[in-house]
Amino acid sequence: MSKTNTGNFFEDFKVGQTIRHATPRTVTHGDVAVYASLYGARHVVTSSEPFARSLGYQTAPVDDFLVFHVVFGKTVPDISLNAVANLGYAECVFHAPVYPGDTLAAESEVIGLKENSNGKTGVVYVRSKGFNQHGACVLSYARWVMVNKRDHGAPPPEPQVPDLAAAVGPSDFADAASGISFEAYDFTLAGAGHRFGDYEVGERVNHADGVTIEEAEHQSATRLYQNTAKVHFNEFEQKESRFGRRLIYGGVVISLARALSFNGLENAQRVLALNGGRHVAPTFAGDTIFAWSEILEKQDIPALDDCGAVRVRTFALKNQPSGSFAGRREANGYDPNVVLDLDYWVLLPR
Amino acid sequence: MSKTNTGNFFEDFKVGQTIRHATPRTVTHGDVAVYASLYGARHVVTSSEPFARSLGYQTAPVDDFLVFHVVFGKTVPDISLNAVANLGYAECVFHAPVYPGDTLAAESEVIGLKENSNGKTGVVYVRSKGFNQHGACVLSYARWVMVNKRDHGAPPPEPQVPDLAAAVGPSDFADAASGISFEAYDFTLAGAGHRFGDYEVGERVNHADGVTIEEAEHQSATRLYQNTAKVHFNEFEQKESRFGRRLIYGGVVISLARALSFNGLENAQRVLALNGGRHVAPTFAGDTIFAWSEILEKQDIPALDDCGAVRVRTFALKNQPSGSFAGRREANGYDPNVVLDLDYWVLLPR
Amino acid sequence: MSKTNTGNFFEDFKVGQTIRHATPRTVTHGDVAVYASLYGARHVVTSSEPFARSLGYQTAPVDDFLVFHVVFGKTVPDISLNAVANLGYAECVFHAPVYPGDTLAAESEVIGLKENSNGKTGVVYVRSKGFNQHGACVLSYARWVMVNKRDHGAPPPEPQVPDLAAAVGPSDFADAASGISFEAYDFTLAGAGHRFGDYEVGERVNHADGVTIEEAEHQSATRLYQNTAKVHFNEFEQKESRFGRRLIYGGVVISLARALSFNGLENAQRVLALNGGRHVAPTFAGDTIFAWSEILEKQDIPALDDCGAVRVRTFALKNQPSGSFAGRREANGYDPNVVLDLDYWVLLPR
Repeated sequence: MSKTNTGNFFEDFKVGQTIRHATPRTVTHGDVAVYASLYGARHVVTSSEPFARSLGYQTAPVDDFLVFHVVFGKTVPDISLNAVANLGYAECVFHAPVYPGDTLAAESEVIGLKENSNGKTGVVYVRSKGFNQHGACVLSYARWVMVNKRDHGAPPPEPQVPDLAAAVGPSDFADAASGISFEAYDFTLAGAGHRFGDYEVGERVNHADGVTIEEAEHQSATRLYQNTAKVHFNEFEQKESRFGRRLIYGGVVISLARALSFNGLENAQRVLALNGGRHVAPTFAGDTIFAWSEILEKQDIPALDDCGAVRVRTFALKNQPSGSFAGRREANGYDPNVVLDLDYWVLLPR
Repeated sequence: MSKTNTGNFFEDFKVGQTIRHATPRTVTHGDVAVYASLYGARHVVTSSEPFARSLGYQTAPVDDFLVFHVVFGKTVPDISLNAVANLGYAECVFHAPVYPGDTLAAESEVIGLKENSNGKTGVVYVRSKGFNQHGACVLSYARWVMVNKRDHGAPPPEPQVPDLAAAVGPSDFADAASGISFEAYDFTLAGAGHRFGDYEVGERVNHADGVTIEEAEHQSATRLYQNTAKVHFNEFEQKESRFGRRLIYGGVVISLARALSFNGLENAQRVLALNGGRHVAPTFAGDTIFAWSEILEKQDIPALDDCGAVRVRTFALKNQPSGSFAGRREANGYDPNVVLDLDYWVLLPR
Repeated sequence: MSKTNTGNFFEDFKVGQTIRHATPRTVTHGDVAVYASLYGARHVVTSSEPFARSLGYQTAPVDDFLVFHVVFGKTVPDISLNAVANLGYAECVFHAPVYPGDTLAAESEVIGLKENSNGKTGVVYVRSKGFNQHGACVLSYARWVMVNKRDHGAPPPEPQVPDLAAAVGPSDFADAASGISFEAYDFTLAGAGHRFGDYEVGERVNHADGVTIEEAEHQSATRLYQNTAKVHFNEFEQKESRFGRRLIYGGVVISLARALSFNGLENAQRVLALNGGRHVAPTFAGDTIFAWSEILEKQDIPALDDCGAVRVRTFALKNQPSGSFAGRREANGYDPNVVLDLDYWVLLPR
């Protein structure tokens, strides 16, 4: 019997099945520093320990997307080693802050299956959760992904498609900010004076800067998450692929867009939840990423009166300045050069 | 009102104005490790905790230039986002060691302004300071930078040019090494036996090695400092600039020259002060950096008898071995290939 | 007298001489994170602190090869600055785990010398040891390297060639795992169910994945180890070498092969010893590395009954998938594309 892990194929998944993923990973100050060097994020709560403590955090929490990528990375060997395409995310909530020294483990439940009519692939729906060393769930999200069948002749499962919310709301993430107070919040140290009340629904924010991604950077990032999806690392094989080269992990673009969003969203201190995300087009080394955001919605958070939740949609563009506000086309998909369409909630002081 | 930070222009600065910069940053063992991987410095006091403690340090201090770059990085969004050129530094003193876990914050006072005769730009003089979480000033320096005017028709300010010292002296940095004793100093573990008394004024030291810089390396370094100056990151826009490509942050060359200087200056354990520094020419990815130093001056440090201060001038060259001792030409600027001319004081055991 | 360190030449070494190397280095969580981002290793004992503690480790130990590379790096300025070729390793034992916060120092004893018949070079045999801050030896190995003579006319030393073991055995590394119990070992969290008993002598394991190495990656890795061998960093000079470009430090390939070996050797939690290693061919940026392993031998470890030692021979290939099982040719050296042939012992739970 070969010991090589070839991953699960579509017919290996059963609805209701729970998969405990390898390998738990202790996230340290070291990971936080490598992440900083890869994205240059400047949001003050993750940058300054005394500032974070002044709001009620134990210390500076780990960047929410670093948590997301580590948990996501753990799921790859079991869920998406034989994936054709990562189709979407929903109902993603960051339930509790993660601190340096915490250890993240992950598990996924299969919540839906639907074979494609071609008989060669199927869509697998999972709900993945990340836990800290105390067993507390720090992150949960639904994801669906198109996976190859091992044996095209295998009988299709009973189709079962979960009913996923188009967006999560304040009641879903109220716990994430409990115990936090913005009374001592210093807007000058945070980088700008724009508060919850200063953003209007429909407002567009140009994050202005552009950053070019190198092969060494996205590979280092993706390895930091222990994400081993081969398309990101293997130039020898990718040369023969339809892209002719390595693909950048979509999470790199998410983190970069979040770091760029500091310019204009300086006080969006935590990501509370993702409603959905779409990697519209592939990104390659040498591409320069820009980002802009639209304010979609504003909500009070139950039991918190010195902050609120702002729903933001951030578009990342490649090789096109963000002042173009290129994004969704009403009738017909996306503008060219859009690579990411991310819909999420952030926490802002009032 | 746009929320995009477009930075200050020349006419936004007033002499006497103090600017508190965003975002404080906790510097950790993680940052120290990333810095090590980017420059490979080997000076023992920053490399070994037990060695540092044996001299009286709390633990291994953070590399002085990592401190400098983090503080400098904080000033960029307020001072030099619209800069045309970084003209010079003076009176830079490292007042106290910074340890992993310390949080650095920065502020700048405008100490001079002088509009250029073209009416389009002006020189802004600032004194910037870095503070730790206890409010102690760990670093201060003067800097002058040429900044664009937003409105060419804006009236010029009263010209005011500060009187800056050509060099700082031992009395300025005596505090930086107070409490440190070299009694237990182990020259073998430090890497060489050359003491304070072994260096002669006028002596030239060839640091010998050369290091080629990659795009991913200088970008990671500059992000680690949260320095967002766009010329370092945005290939898409830089392609249209007069250089046709990304420029490497000058601080990367400073750190690399300091790391290379280990060969021949192994016992120059701390940088006490910078008298001045000049980025003579731009550096680009693919350039190989070499360095050599001239000993300019030697001084006792008040109240310290087992060490002394050596004033060093280090030249960094690109794509030319340091054995050439290329540097300043008497009458006519610099030899070709010189990229850095740095004048600074280091601490050496006797 | 020049202060530039030009390193030792063949005639500078004397049998019996002990060299204490500069510079001790404190290895931190930061170094562990940078190492993770460079190789993406997933073995659970080094990845998860709670998991490591559940087996009896103080916390997650530092990756064995990170320890090896740091100790090796310290020896370079004294032993191999004037080396022509790194010829081999033997009797390498990891005596005790190293934890984040430990400080590594190194020394080497010259155990053999033999001038080559050309009178220009000679082989230097050393036994190098790494110590932690408590003075405990954590690593020892023999190494032989061909070094230039400074003066071709210098008289040859009495030839003395040490008798080195072809392999070390369980009695040599029994201490390394003392106090460790696999009773609480969770195979699911570790990533696979393959135990000591599941591997058969002669079995071949295809590690499947391939990773392309970038210049920025191998340079960052090699600097992390404070290894300053110039062939890895100096494109300006290497352009004129017989390779025409920078050479990747062989230790980078070792670490990458070990990380790749997770797929199929998930439970090989610690490297106990190296019997030998050979860098069969040079590796350059842009090469894609694959790896496969052969099980050579299995042994009980004295006084440990819930684990055993498996002797593994791992071949790394460049630009050739590991399913080819390219390796040693019986009569005539190696298959093309083999870059590493590493013979080592790993610890597996029963």
